[in-house]
Amino acid sequence: MVGLSKQKQKYIQSLHNKKYRNQYGVFLVEGQKSILEVLDSDFEIEEVFLTEKAVDLIDASVDHVLCSEQEIAKVSSFRSNNFGVLVAKMKENALPQIEKGEWILVLDQINDPGNLGTIIRTADWYGIRKVVCSEQTVDFYNPKVISSTMGSFARITPYYTDLTDFLKSAKLPVFGAFLEGQNVHSIDFSNQSGILVIGSESHGISNELAPLITDKLTIPAFGKAESLNAGIATAILLDNIKRGVSGT
Amino acid sequence: MVGLSKQKQKYIQSLHNKKYRNQYGVFLVEGQKSILEVLDSDFEIEEVFLTEKAVDLIDASVDHVLCSEQEIAKVSSFRSNNFGVLVAKMKENALPQIEKGEWILVLDQINDPGNLGTIIRTADWYGIRKVVCSEQTVDFYNPKVISSTMGSFARITPYYTDLTDFLKSAKLPVFGAFLEGQNVHSIDFSNQSGILVIGSESHGISNELAPLITDKLTIPAFGKAESLNAGIATAILLDNIKRGVSGT
Repeated sequence: MVGLSKQKQKYIQSLHNKKYRNQYGVFLVEGQKSILEVLDSDFEIEEVFLTEKAVDLIDASVDHVLCSEQEIAKVSSFRSNNFGVLVAKMKENALPQIEKGEWILVLDQINDPGNLGTIIRTADWYGIRKVVCSEQTVDFYNPKVISSTMGSFARITPYYTDLTDFLKSAKLPVFGAFLEGQNVHSIDFSNQSGILVIGSESHGISNELAPLITDKLTIPAFGKAESLNAGIATAILLDNIKRGVSGT
Repeated sequence: MVGLSKQKQKYIQSLHNKKYRNQYGVFLVEGQKSILEVLDSDFEIEEVFLTEKAVDLIDASVDHVLCSEQEIAKVSSFRSNNFGVLVAKMKENALPQIEKGEWILVLDQINDPGNLGTIIRTADWYGIRKVVCSEQTVDFYNPKVISSTMGSFARITPYYTDLTDFLKSAKLPVFGAFLEGQNVHSIDFSNQSGILVIGSESHGISNELAPLITDKLTIPAFGKAESLNAGIATAILLDNIKRGVSGT
């Protein structure tokens, strides 16, 4: 098949909007890196739209609609996209099973798509597979989140839920960063597993969740900055948590 | 004095532009957090423009021009700014003296203002005071950089220069992250000092600088992400470097 019908164009453009993503149960994947990652994952693919350049690069057995670069540019949120876009089915929003020795990440109201994308990418670096998000956290399937994960969205399963209920029923220790917690540099996390809660960019961990944190952590400061960006704090905490384990 | 003249308004607006910042040798500081930090620093202040709300909150002895919130909104890059703006003198672009035991950060082409701001904020958290930037790195005095440092710009001195020359003349070990470096989790950095080079968001440390890195580091991976954001990598490396030292 060749070319984008007006109707298809409208459909793809509608996926920039959360309302239509939820209505159709699908989301948009844009550009070479993300498309290659999602084709190599267990996501169910609905339809693939590629430029000639992309077809030359990609496994030719992938069913696709051949599009001009102009057609792709019209439906993509990227400033430039000469590769393609793809529509994939969202995963079911289901309570994750936590395996023995596994760490999972809980996000308490991360509002900025770029921040969420960076957190997902960092979590993937540290081998996290499941991220539980408050209902106020920006949508994982937002195209800006997807693209800023640099392909890591394909390896992480999100679950949006009420965090108070989720943490109350959790059977694992719940870690979170506070000013008066234990210095992460002095803790041996090897042989531990648990839930790491990351607070919002502006307010930290919310008052409702604070009593549910069983292990308060502090990232030691050596200068005068009053706080760290949420993504930065996630990275430092995960690096400390994983340092007892062999990486690659 | 009360109110913003047309001329002053034009002057402040021109400071959104690097060309005029360099011509006048000054930069723009916006909003409560940054203004309070810069007033408490050794930056030389040229002129302060405050709303009534700000005057109620701030030390009243600060010379200022009283402005309406509408006037401030016109000259500020913020979506909302009901506090004020301030014009301060840029610091001299001078080769930093490195003190005994000090770590300094070298930035090899960080392009995104938000990334640079986050790196400055994180550096400040870890007690770094001097940051040497390639000439291609986004301007430290860009209003978006200043605001995303969350006040940390007031404690960090930047120096823009040719990094090849700078590193060649450096008398300290030069650290940088590469895929084939030594695992940072296995290094004892206590009693060390040095220069930490951070590469660009898309290309890492440039080919010209790579031979000047004396100590190659690797952040161990536990999952499948191919890379980390530059700010995230900075944070993890600084946290590993400083973990032998007592923080607060």
